[in-house]
Formats: sequence, structure tokens, C-alpha cells
Amino acid sequence: MIQLSLIGIGTGNPDHVTGEARSAMNAADLILVPLKGEDKADLAGLRLAICKACVTNPATRIETFELPVRDPATPDYLNRVNDWHDAIAEVWEGCIRAHLAAGGGPRVALLVWGDPSLYDSTLRIADRVGARLPLSLRVIPGITAIQALCAAHAIPLNDLGAPVVITTGRQLRAKGWPEAAGTVVVMLDAGGAFEALPPEGVQIWWGGYVGMAEQILIAGPLAEVAPKIMAARAEARAGHGWIMDVYLMRRGA
Amino acid sequence: MIQLSLIGIGTGNPDHVTGEARSAMNAADLILVPLKGEDKADLAGLRLAICKACVTNPATRIETFELPVRDPATPDYLNRVNDWHDAIAEVWEGCIRAHLAAGGGPRVALLVWGDPSLYDSTLRIADRVGARLPLSLRVIPGITAIQALCAAHAIPLNDLGAPVVITTGRQLRAKGWPEAAGTVVVMLDAGGAFEALPPEGVQIWWGGYVGMAEQILIAGPLAEVAPKIMAARAEARAGHGWIMDVYLMRRGA
Repeated sequence: MIQLSLIGIGTGNPDHVTGEARSAMNAADLILVPLKGEDKADLAGLRLAICKACVTNPATRIETFELPVRDPATPDYLNRVNDWHDAIAEVWEGCIRAHLAAGGGPRVALLVWGDPSLYDSTLRIADRVGARLPLSLRVIPGITAIQALCAAHAIPLNDLGAPVVITTGRQLRAKGWPEAAGTVVVMLDAGGAFEALPPEGVQIWWGGYVGMAEQILIAGPLAEVAPKIMAARAEARAGHGWIMDVYLMRRGA
Repeated sequence: MIQLSLIGIGTGNPDHVTGEARSAMNAADLILVPLKGEDKADLAGLRLAICKACVTNPATRIETFELPVRDPATPDYLNRVNDWHDAIAEVWEGCIRAHLAAGGGPRVALLVWGDPSLYDSTLRIADRVGARLPLSLRVIPGITAIQALCAAHAIPLNDLGAPVVITTGRQLRAKGWPEAAGTVVVMLDAGGAFEALPPEGVQIWWGGYVGMAEQILIAGPLAEVAPKIMAARAEARAGHGWIMDVYLMRRGA
């Protein structure tokens, strides 16, 4: 039986790592770290650096693997993502089988940006691997970009006793402001989905690279700061070659 | 200028504490720990135990204070909570002024269950104190009950690319299932708000004391497990004298 640990490591700040995550890394026989594909070079290096900073057990092997890329020829978004998860599961399976065949121990770990539960594919990929190898699964939570954003701006996620919607840039563009809540958090936005909203009465708190040394914060009325956010985002993306951002919007508060 | 740190410590598992939270505790001149009022005895002791386990700096003072209680004579929920926050802010202010008057240093910390951004009053109380004392505020994120719940059940928070609503038991009872999402997380439920929903097609993942040694998990179709959850909740509450629980529901998946 393989003991697979999915370990949330936060948003790139090694100080986000919990005691539980650190212990799980050091209890692993093998830590698998994706290095290419959709992952950007800086990010892969940062994940590896966090891993090396936390792992003090000389028996823990850290191995990198090539992450497959999504096939742009598959037109439907969910099919494209599902096919991609299948391909990643095959790579994991191959790595784990090779590790075991070489006499490696059964405790395997994967490090996850943020938390394995939130807009992350690792649990879905682990389910696929579990259908082909005997697995027991353990999930270790980590600080999410939403928490790092709220902490950096020193704001609550929710209004007093009020609901919050967490959604994606794709959903926000397709469906507009979700009526269920006065607070909306947007993740996985390829850029500026907030521009699809009528900006009147909306406040936004935006962050790029939240929790990292490169962190950029912008907040204010959406009508006023939307162009500033778009300019800062484009500039940062050009400079680093990649960007991860997240934002919270409130209206009617 | 007082440097006030609001430190998320997770849901009662000392292993949830991040490196950042641990450093901030040890950098504090004074850590204020609420001990009574609405806080239950077990919880206060647990918070103090986590604090003592993390603090190795002999110069850091750990002080407890009596937490005021909400006035049940104030009928409106939001007014009652706002009055209560005013009363807590006065107690904080008194503790901080007494500490400074005795020659204490300016770095003050408060420990927060879960994360200071999520259904927690600490940021709102800090704003009140900041209106009466010169404060610079720092927020340090911590693992929330939602993350501990998803990790314990090894489930994703969201369906693939889909939104999530986080809400309260009070809101769920008043407004029913929020149309914006197929996934709803409910916090601050005084007990069984899910019973107000038509249970057909709804799956629930429930947890009591998530992340703690006492953790209880129940999952399944809502129609089937709702009575089991109510019974387990009542029994656990009677045994411990208090309960903290959280749940995630999905429909149409």
C-alpha cells in the first residue's frame, strides 16, 4: 500500500509552511516535484527551494518530473483539463512504479501550491492513480492565496455574518456578479475578468504574487483602480515571465 | 506606535501553526489570550497550550483577559455583535495601556482560531482599538476549519472550475441553498441548518472538532446522514460541553 501525501505549502513564502507539512515532507521516502510544462520556471525553482529548505531527513529523495501540457486541440475546457489530469496521473504512476522497483519505500509526497482543496488538480489526479495502484491518501492543508491576499490587505474575507462566493475568472466573465453574496473572490483569472462587470459601487482588493517577496497590492474603487491593476499586471508579467494573482470585490457594503 | 499582530493558529492542532505564526509569537512583547466569556473552557486551555508550545522567547509575556459576553437583551443580531465588539475593544485597550504603562514593549499579539479573515471578529475589534490608540496592524494567515474539513475528508472544496459559496447557518436557514453554486460550505451553525433544505440530491461532508484529536467525520447523502450528524453532534456536545463544527454540501454533481 502506497501512502500518498498531498501537502499544501502556501503561496511561495517558506514561512507559510506548517509544522504538519514539514513533518510530512520529512516522513516521505520520495517527494515528487513537477518542473516543466505549464509550471513556470521561477515557480518550479521556488517549490524546489521550499522543499530543500524543509527537508532535513537524508533518506527523503526529492525527484523532479516533466509535467505534461494541456492539449490546445481539445476545444472543450473541462475535457481538456480532464485529459490533462489523465496524462499527469500516468506520469505520477510511472514515477512511483520506478521508485518502488528500485527498492524505494512506500511513502510518497507531492507538494501543492496553496491548499490541495482549492482550485487544484492534485486530488483529482490522485483519484486516478488510486484506481491503478493501491493508495492510502492523506491531505495536509496549506495557506491559500485568498488568505494571503486578505492578510496582506488586513481585511476580513466576509462582511459580518454575510456569505462569500469564491469563483473563477472564466465564471465571472460568463455569469457576472453572483447574486448570492456581496463579496466575491476571483481565482484563476487569465486577466481582468473584473472588466466585464459594471464597476459602480464595487471595491476591489487585488494582489499579485501574494505572500511572496514580489508581492504587489492595489485596492480601491473598481472604476478607479481597474486600469492601474491591468497596467501593473502586464508590467509584472512581462518582468517575471509569469504572474499569479487573486482579488476580492465587495459591493453594497 | 503599537505593532499589533493578529495571528491565525489553525483549528486547535498545534501542527497547523505556520513558521510565520511561530516567529510572530516569539517576536511579541505581549500575547493576549481570552479566557472566559463566550470562549469554552477547553478551547481557552487549548489556545494557551498552543501558545506555550510555540513561545520560546523568555521576554514574551502571555497574559489572559476576561472576554465580555454578548448581551442577550439586544434583540438585533448585528447590533448585538457590534456592541460586543465595542466591549472587547475596550478590554484590549485597557490591557495594552496597562502593559505599556508598566514599561512593556510595543509588539502586541492576539491569537485567532483558524484565520483572522474568516468569520472572525478580531480585525473588526482591531479597527476599533486603532481609532483610540496608534496602531500598525499585521495579519498572519492560519489554517481554517474549511481547509481542515476538506483535508480530513480528502475532498476538493470546489468542483472542477466551479464556484463555491461560504455562508453561515443563519443565512442558510433564512435564504435556502444559494443559487450561485453547486457547493456550499456552512460555518457558525448553531446546529442543523441543513435540515431546512430539501435533501434530495445533496451530499454532505460534516466534521466536528476538525483538525483536533477529538475530530468526528460523517459523510454521505444528506437525507441519509442528517439524523446521524444531529445525534453525533448532540452526543459530542454533551460530552465536551461545547462543539465546533463545519460542513460542505454539494448538489447536482
